[in-house]
Amino acid sequence: MSMPLATPSSPQSIPEGRNPAAVLHGVHDVRIEERAVPSPAPHEVLVEIGAVGICGSDVHYYEHGRIGDFVLTSPMVIGHESAGRVVGVGDDVDPARLDQLVALEPGIPCKGCGECREGRYNLCPEVKFFATPPVDGSIARYVTLDAQFAHPAPEILDAEQAAMAEPVSVGVWACRKAGVSVGDRVLITGAGPVGLFAAQAARAFGARSVTLTDLNEHRLAIADDLGFQTVPGGAEIPGEHDVLFECSGAAPAFAAGVRSLARAGRAVVIGMGAQTLPLEVFALQGRELSISGVFRYANCYPAALELISSGGVDVRPVITHRFRLDETEEALTLAGRDPQALKAVVAP
Amino acid sequence: MSMPLATPSSPQSIPEGRNPAAVLHGVHDVRIEERAVPSPAPHEVLVEIGAVGICGSDVHYYEHGRIGDFVLTSPMVIGHESAGRVVGVGDDVDPARLDQLVALEPGIPCKGCGECREGRYNLCPEVKFFATPPVDGSIARYVTLDAQFAHPAPEILDAEQAAMAEPVSVGVWACRKAGVSVGDRVLITGAGPVGLFAAQAARAFGARSVTLTDLNEHRLAIADDLGFQTVPGGAEIPGEHDVLFECSGAAPAFAAGVRSLARAGRAVVIGMGAQTLPLEVFALQGRELSISGVFRYANCYPAALELISSGGVDVRPVITHRFRLDETEEALTLAGRDPQALKAVVAP
Amino acid sequence: MSMPLATPSSPQSIPEGRNPAAVLHGVHDVRIEERAVPSPAPHEVLVEIGAVGICGSDVHYYEHGRIGDFVLTSPMVIGHESAGRVVGVGDDVDPARLDQLVALEPGIPCKGCGECREGRYNLCPEVKFFATPPVDGSIARYVTLDAQFAHPAPEILDAEQAAMAEPVSVGVWACRKAGVSVGDRVLITGAGPVGLFAAQAARAFGARSVTLTDLNEHRLAIADDLGFQTVPGGAEIPGEHDVLFECSGAAPAFAAGVRSLARAGRAVVIGMGAQTLPLEVFALQGRELSISGVFRYANCYPAALELISSGGVDVRPVITHRFRLDETEEALTLAGRDPQALKAVVAP
Amino acid sequence: MSMPLATPSSPQSIPEGRNPAAVLHGVHDVRIEERAVPSPAPHEVLVEIGAVGICGSDVHYYEHGRIGDFVLTSPMVIGHESAGRVVGVGDDVDPARLDQLVALEPGIPCKGCGECREGRYNLCPEVKFFATPPVDGSIARYVTLDAQFAHPAPEILDAEQAAMAEPVSVGVWACRKAGVSVGDRVLITGAGPVGLFAAQAARAFGARSVTLTDLNEHRLAIADDLGFQTVPGGAEIPGEHDVLFECSGAAPAFAAGVRSLARAGRAVVIGMGAQTLPLEVFALQGRELSISGVFRYANCYPAALELISSGGVDVRPVITHRFRLDETEEALTLAGRDPQALKAVVAP
Repeated sequence: MSMPLATPSSPQSIPEGRNPAAVLHGVHDVRIEERAVPSPAPHEVLVEIGAVGICGSDVHYYEHGRIGDFVLTSPMVIGHESAGRVVGVGDDVDPARLDQLVALEPGIPCKGCGECREGRYNLCPEVKFFATPPVDGSIARYVTLDAQFAHPAPEILDAEQAAMAEPVSVGVWACRKAGVSVGDRVLITGAGPVGLFAAQAARAFGARSVTLTDLNEHRLAIADDLGFQTVPGGAEIPGEHDVLFECSGAAPAFAAGVRSLARAGRAVVIGMGAQTLPLEVFALQGRELSISGVFRYANCYPAALELISSGGVDVRPVITHRFRLDETEEALTLAGRDPQALKAVVAP
Repeated sequence: MSMPLATPSSPQSIPEGRNPAAVLHGVHDVRIEERAVPSPAPHEVLVEIGAVGICGSDVHYYEHGRIGDFVLTSPMVIGHESAGRVVGVGDDVDPARLDQLVALEPGIPCKGCGECREGRYNLCPEVKFFATPPVDGSIARYVTLDAQFAHPAPEILDAEQAAMAEPVSVGVWACRKAGVSVGDRVLITGAGPVGLFAAQAARAFGARSVTLTDLNEHRLAIADDLGFQTVPGGAEIPGEHDVLFECSGAAPAFAAGVRSLARAGRAVVIGMGAQTLPLEVFALQGRELSISGVFRYANCYPAALELISSGGVDVRPVITHRFRLDETEEALTLAGRDPQALKAVVAP
Repeated sequence: MSMPLATPSSPQSIPEGRNPAAVLHGVHDVRIEERAVPSPAPHEVLVEIGAVGICGSDVHYYEHGRIGDFVLTSPMVIGHESAGRVVGVGDDVDPARLDQLVALEPGIPCKGCGECREGRYNLCPEVKFFATPPVDGSIARYVTLDAQFAHPAPEILDAEQAAMAEPVSVGVWACRKAGVSVGDRVLITGAGPVGLFAAQAARAFGARSVTLTDLNEHRLAIADDLGFQTVPGGAEIPGEHDVLFECSGAAPAFAAGVRSLARAGRAVVIGMGAQTLPLEVFALQGRELSISGVFRYANCYPAALELISSGGVDVRPVITHRFRLDETEEALTLAGRDPQALKAVVAP
Repeated sequence: MSMPLATPSSPQSIPEGRNPAAVLHGVHDVRIEERAVPSPAPHEVLVEIGAVGICGSDVHYYEHGRIGDFVLTSPMVIGHESAGRVVGVGDDVDPARLDQLVALEPGIPCKGCGECREGRYNLCPEVKFFATPPVDGSIARYVTLDAQFAHPAPEILDAEQAAMAEPVSVGVWACRKAGVSVGDRVLITGAGPVGLFAAQAARAFGARSVTLTDLNEHRLAIADDLGFQTVPGGAEIPGEHDVLFECSGAAPAFAAGVRSLARAGRAVVIGMGAQTLPLEVFALQGRELSISGVFRYANCYPAALELISSGGVDVRPVITHRFRLDETEEALTLAGRDPQALKAVVAP
């Protein structure tokens, strides 16, 4: 029960030594364990976590022990959509940041490779990302993070809202990739949390209209409540669109969405699921479509936090369930039990 | 045998009345017929055609009578890669253009729709394109064309070289779509005429390296002669690339090319053949690739002509066969007979 | 009293023959005169004008008889911010457009030159623009216009609101030039009608904050009512900005605005007044600023109309005075009489 | 005679201890002094300098002791256009880099601030740049540098050529800022080293034509030898241009260059000299010009080295004088003595 931060240069309240964390040991094996309270390196902050959203990738690791080439080979703390308060600062960090509410950007790049120097740090081959093996995630009481990736959140937000900066950043990044702007008609296939956040981001970027499709009527009802147009699963998608955000991971949804794209339309593939998507050459060429994929995000957290605090993105209707840290397993199994569930949040 | 252009305001040598043309009546049925010499509308020029390149689409109409939704339902003059001399001008056209060597941009858009106003006139739904049913093409002695789409060619070019502005424009357009510039490593799958022109265009746009793949060794030898790196068919594509131009129409070539793309790589699908291409989601997302298709080109003729005249694109090694107008059918069947054939040109 | 449009193919109510118009004969000499009701060419519509906004350029012609190289040499109808109802259609125009509310885009380009083909039709050297000598403007009962530039307005708008699509398009164009998007901090120097519309456009494009400066406190009060931050004339501009829209025409305002730009900041010069602006090299280079100018707009009317109808841009607080057609001279002299005046609208 | 790098993990030949350097003590006071051989930090390389070009900024510090806000307050090694061989590597650097020829990118950013994360590391407020007070430069026998900013040079280059990657990068960056590509007509005002390198870079980016102006006939003769069009000082600049690179630092040259810009033309201000440039509003708006400034460069060294090694940029005609390290003062005063001098290189 040491006091990790007691240095003359950073006098501060010292966190108690208990640091429970949700540790994934294998498929269907998550345990609440005590970890040592970490000590921030000179450029880091120590954060007392207030909320962590559960992402589909967390569920996937819990269910399968791997995602593609990333394989769980040793116990790993899970979770990466997190926010909390700064309770310790490293020697090189301004002590004024103590007590600041921060959203934790979960991927720390090397900062020096070609991708990083080009501003594409999300593509850094050396990136260390929370809860991507073997890097520990953030469902714990205390976490350290590079201070530059602990983004100050407006104080009108609570930790739960600030934690949503992670999936909202995905929507912001997709809007930037597609160049969403005033006048655009946006179609979103898949009205899960990412689709609902991307839809709101698209509206904040000026989209003229935003339409969502899903097989799940409950999700469409929420989309409807948020003021979006909706198309039930299987129905013909009406009209044409300038932008498609594929958020369902389903190949037929992608194909239907691409069919509805106008000339010079842009599609962004966000959802994971299908390994291969069919690209119809006649459409791609005849309408000169552009298709791109997104991998996380870069430089989006400040904008995401601003959208959440300004009301441009309302995260509350998407957060449907809340759990204590010791209920993490329930949070991970929620999606399979409750078709009306959207985003679960764990509050350590 | 009227004199179509004899008006007081545009005194000029009047073309003789004969106007033989290569007319496609159906599958494997091309006939040389006399057509009336057309009279230029006020904004048009009358061009005495000097050379017309044979494109794969011409061959496709000859073999199948259709391309996708475009179906030959009445006899149509074929050919669309053409150049010649201005021998008549409409009332609103500067008579100084008489005798000018011009390359004929074959697609005339409506000029007023949303696509046209945005500068994407190649996507104009009303475009009239040479030799796309029911619009007559340019394998004829005389053709009229909107004067603004009859691009003045540097006089150091001959008609054959100027006619190549059409397929070279495809390469220029692909380079613009992909943003090819200094430092880029470009891979081109398919070393036919379009691939060889696109390769030279990429070099002129500053590409650091250009590599071509093909199953046909003769084509690779020409690529090699032009100074490019080559990879034999089936061999592993070495290294990684920033840009892919898919010019083969073969799905496996596209897949192999995409595999070799670096992070943030861009692919442009130029070749026609496969109806559907497989898009691997893990690559698209993990490396944030962009895939786009091209449909002809917009605003590329001046640049293409400049590249041909400056030597940036050498069209001579690509033009392997020459035919008289009355040999058009031989030109259309060449590709099937001679695996070493690249571009055939008909000289009316 | 002819019936300009009575053709079998376009049966329609025929406008009465009176066509009063506000004609500028010289400095301080505007007269209400009867003009013949024009007959739409095949591709045109005949519009019964409902509202015309008065622009600073109209006032400038009234006061000086010229703007730069554009000199009034013969009587010219003034006004160019206009909307109304379609009351006649040319032979090539869909008769279903009769009775449609339309906003009249006042500049008709040649559609064929290099600028037009590139999508920069506002830079067309042959553009014919309402009330730019010698082209007649739109303060008249009836006006004809190319149907493609008579933009359908949502029916929830009235003519006055639809007429504002012109100055709102200036704001939309500036946002596009500067790439305004989510996260940007925008500064606008000059809170006249264009500044107030540009401010609202910037907010609709996602700007994080919009700040206006002006010497006129009344204008700042309206900006404040619209929810913007304001800085009184002469006061230090606080904070730094990503984008500057210079709308005052005053060199000191431009200089102060540029000083407040962040690294990689973008400035757009919209206001006219100063002939020369001082460009500080140390700032331009050290922060890698970009400065651009705008000339009218291209492809902005649909977006402007959508913003007005969605409430993204509220034009009502900006329209401060209304006049009948026979009061046009009062509208033109309003600005000199009433410092609280913003936009005057004439309703023929 | 210490051995700075002797660690078990990086066995290597150890440089002898002498490290002469050219140290600026004040105006007109440069001294050759012995400095300790520096020891590379874990992420650094130790470079034995082979060549350092003299830049106008070096001369300016020698003449004035300051550039703008950067003031020499303590002795500082000068020089920043440098290349050499790796003779030592830090613990985290691949020992295979020993003996590698490298060009030294002279500005090391913080890698973590907002500008760095956006890929605009040249605008990093914490950047440490060779020979910008108080950071030591590179006219010395031995210099350490962040290994990621020591760019491997093709072995066909010598150190002198590789050192030119610095000013060539300025030209590459200007081309990227202006988007120079195939078809562009580029005007360069000022045919000094930067102008001559920028001209060659523009040609490598595909420019259709490149024209240089200068008052100095000798410089124009070199431009002419390199195949460019030239315009003598004071003569009317013929034709119109798409891109202007202002490299002279003279306001009249900028004004004349801007006058020659075509619609949608882009100007990049590279030269330093005039504190304020006059921006003519009528031109800026009427032709929708864009003006931007450049501050050093980002991510350009690899492209610059590739251009030098491929022959795209020939640096030899620009290097007119060579000096030994102990002749550094002569190199600094050369420009004032010899109007035919272009680039001087010091070889430690």
